[in-house]
Amino acid sequence: MTRITATYDIETPSGLAHAAAVLAGEQSTGTFVRLVSETDELRERSGARVESVTLTGASKTPSLPSRKTGEKYERGLVTISWPIGNFGTSLPTLMSTLAGNLFELAELSAIRLIDVDLPEQFARDHPGPQFGAEGTRAFMGHDKGPLIGTIIKPSIGFTPDETADLVSTLVTAGIDFIKDDELQANGPDCPFEDRLNAVMRVINNHSDRTGKKVLYAVNITDEIDQMWRNLDMMDRAGATCAMVCVNSVGQTGLRAVRDRSKVLIHGHRAGWGIFSRSPDIGIDFGVMQKLWRLAGADHLHVNGLANKFTESDNTVARAARSVQQPISKNGGSAHTAMPVYSSGQTIWQVDPARKLLGNDDFIYCAGGGIMSHPGGVSDGVKSLRDAAEAARLGIPLEDFAKPNSPLRKAIETFQKPHLTLSDL
Amino acid sequence: MTRITATYDIETPSGLAHAAAVLAGEQSTGTFVRLVSETDELRERSGARVESVTLTGASKTPSLPSRKTGEKYERGLVTISWPIGNFGTSLPTLMSTLAGNLFELAELSAIRLIDVDLPEQFARDHPGPQFGAEGTRAFMGHDKGPLIGTIIKPSIGFTPDETADLVSTLVTAGIDFIKDDELQANGPDCPFEDRLNAVMRVINNHSDRTGKKVLYAVNITDEIDQMWRNLDMMDRAGATCAMVCVNSVGQTGLRAVRDRSKVLIHGHRAGWGIFSRSPDIGIDFGVMQKLWRLAGADHLHVNGLANKFTESDNTVARAARSVQQPISKNGGSAHTAMPVYSSGQTIWQVDPARKLLGNDDFIYCAGGGIMSHPGGVSDGVKSLRDAAEAARLGIPLEDFAKPNSPLRKAIETFQKPHLTLSDL
Repeated sequence: MTRITATYDIETPSGLAHAAAVLAGEQSTGTFVRLVSETDELRERSGARVESVTLTGASKTPSLPSRKTGEKYERGLVTISWPIGNFGTSLPTLMSTLAGNLFELAELSAIRLIDVDLPEQFARDHPGPQFGAEGTRAFMGHDKGPLIGTIIKPSIGFTPDETADLVSTLVTAGIDFIKDDELQANGPDCPFEDRLNAVMRVINNHSDRTGKKVLYAVNITDEIDQMWRNLDMMDRAGATCAMVCVNSVGQTGLRAVRDRSKVLIHGHRAGWGIFSRSPDIGIDFGVMQKLWRLAGADHLHVNGLANKFTESDNTVARAARSVQQPISKNGGSAHTAMPVYSSGQTIWQVDPARKLLGNDDFIYCAGGGIMSHPGGVSDGVKSLRDAAEAARLGIPLEDFAKPNSPLRKAIETFQKPHLTLSDL
Repeated sequence: MTRITATYDIETPSGLAHAAAVLAGEQSTGTFVRLVSETDELRERSGARVESVTLTGASKTPSLPSRKTGEKYERGLVTISWPIGNFGTSLPTLMSTLAGNLFELAELSAIRLIDVDLPEQFARDHPGPQFGAEGTRAFMGHDKGPLIGTIIKPSIGFTPDETADLVSTLVTAGIDFIKDDELQANGPDCPFEDRLNAVMRVINNHSDRTGKKVLYAVNITDEIDQMWRNLDMMDRAGATCAMVCVNSVGQTGLRAVRDRSKVLIHGHRAGWGIFSRSPDIGIDFGVMQKLWRLAGADHLHVNGLANKFTESDNTVARAARSVQQPISKNGGSAHTAMPVYSSGQTIWQVDPARKLLGNDDFIYCAGGGIMSHPGGVSDGVKSLRDAAEAARLGIPLEDFAKPNSPLRKAIETFQKPHLTLSDL
């Protein structure tokens, strides 16, 4: 029978094998007190199964506060499988099963969901990204190289007209992609529709003049009905990219957008730290991004190499790669998304960002890396595009940059960060 | 100007006051590199403000892995406020703001969102619970005492007919409330519509005979469109309570259900451990339950005293009380929900569960506490109802229980747990 498989990194005072069995029981046929009705046949049909248990360490103290205590706390990887008959391919029920009550089990003093393998049936039953990288390029007539993008800053505080003024500067400077900040959605001080219309007038005018339709990821994040109204407004305004804060609307909200959307869906992961920051509780990005892609995200934020936040470069590299890998380990529909790099990005991270993917199908967002270029915004964009071309040709920036070029000035302006990438 | 206030428990290598300022900046007008456009006027209008900073401790090592390090890590409470003009009363944008990128700030080696005060405008702009405790009683003709409930076990594995058979036993035994397990939604082995119809035949027949309509919280958790179809099926079947796993569908999913629902909404919090388990990252229940109530949950799970999971009794007590408190600290619409106790509950926890609330407006779910009664399910339910009556009268169980009564047998059967409640 087709099964879903998940791997957890757990810690337990109760013995690793026992804890794995409790986890499998709790998340399937398990009852607190074993009931007569929990027959062997029922367990065979619906029970979760412990597939493997691998001890990786032990400690004298628990990593998280726990009701149960012990003399030692074993740590290890446990792989559990579930029959697909329990929940079919419903993503919300998959979440209740793989990431539900088990996080509160007294037998566990740490638990992270680190991997999931979904049968191909999931990729068939869900829409996946409507456009992906190829569709993204088609929307804007940008046929090669990564998309050079930026974020409207200040994060919040601009009026619609002030936002449009900044967008005007950016499109004139040759940018490919502009996004709202996740804090800017539909507040009274900058209403969605006014901002959308003001910005799209600029972008449409620029497109009429140049043939290049800059992508504006307008933040539609809101309640479901309002997001649908926002999509209608986007349609009327000729907008082509809807930004959704996936943790704020949930993956069902993302899917609801996908079901009514004619445009690109830009998945922002604000709030991701809750899932990622502790080594002892949470969910790896490799798991969640599969759900977000199945639900329809065309673009997914993956943080940036040498970012201003807390994720390591290896974590960012794994995240960026993950969204370009097939949903199921045994193949099937790829449903790939474009990784979006951002946070502290300058000319220096373009090459490693490209190298770890092996292609140009990514969005590279820089804030200060564009705005703080001594030659202005236009030179900031040019320097990043040149850095991408150097990366494609495999030429070091210092060798590629012509004297007095925007790239040369960027080399002199921005400090080269130290990357710690073990698997490049 | 009306402001939203949130309090965080943070730890930082950068100095507590500085970290608070960084947090406020990141979550409002802040830019990485201070831009010319970030004027004083703009900051005054849209900036978040640090309202207070209280040092509570310090350590030599960081609680969470962090990019920034220091000689010491200060810990403390910081209160930040935002002008409502930034996001109005949109709950998703409230989440992006209060619980967004800040969780990943390199200046923080721990951060929990522990409290939020919302202006009354939130309570006015959101529907809140459609029925609450009073409406719940009206749906079933149960006018006094807590609702005695149970969960269909095994969690998963029963066919629709097997489920209905168990429900038949339970309604005959006098139960008030029955819920699906969160794992049981709409899998191929027990399709939603078949289970719903099989169970409601039993409940409707029992209601026709006795006048008592037992509440069946059927798990409608799914994608938005499917949840709406599930509500339609419930309407046709005469069902009165929809269970929603709030973390699996997100709070926008919950709201989407509320907008189309004619029935009670039973909020299950499977997956809550991700938010609650670590003292160093996450969100307190007191915060999330406000959003879930605003979005429309009539019932909210709060775990149980002496539960089989990991939360302390004080945490459970605070959670249970929180859902009966007004949304805004300065009054306004109450929008209260019924707390649902469950997990390891027997006759022993009824009295403290009631005492900490000061009323009977709660649902008390027992699994083994009913099923394992030596006199059978019917005596199990009777013993809990008697325990509730004893609690109401303020009489100890041992004094209230008649010889050979179901309550007496329960006293002899179930071990009295040790509670650790500091504030009762």
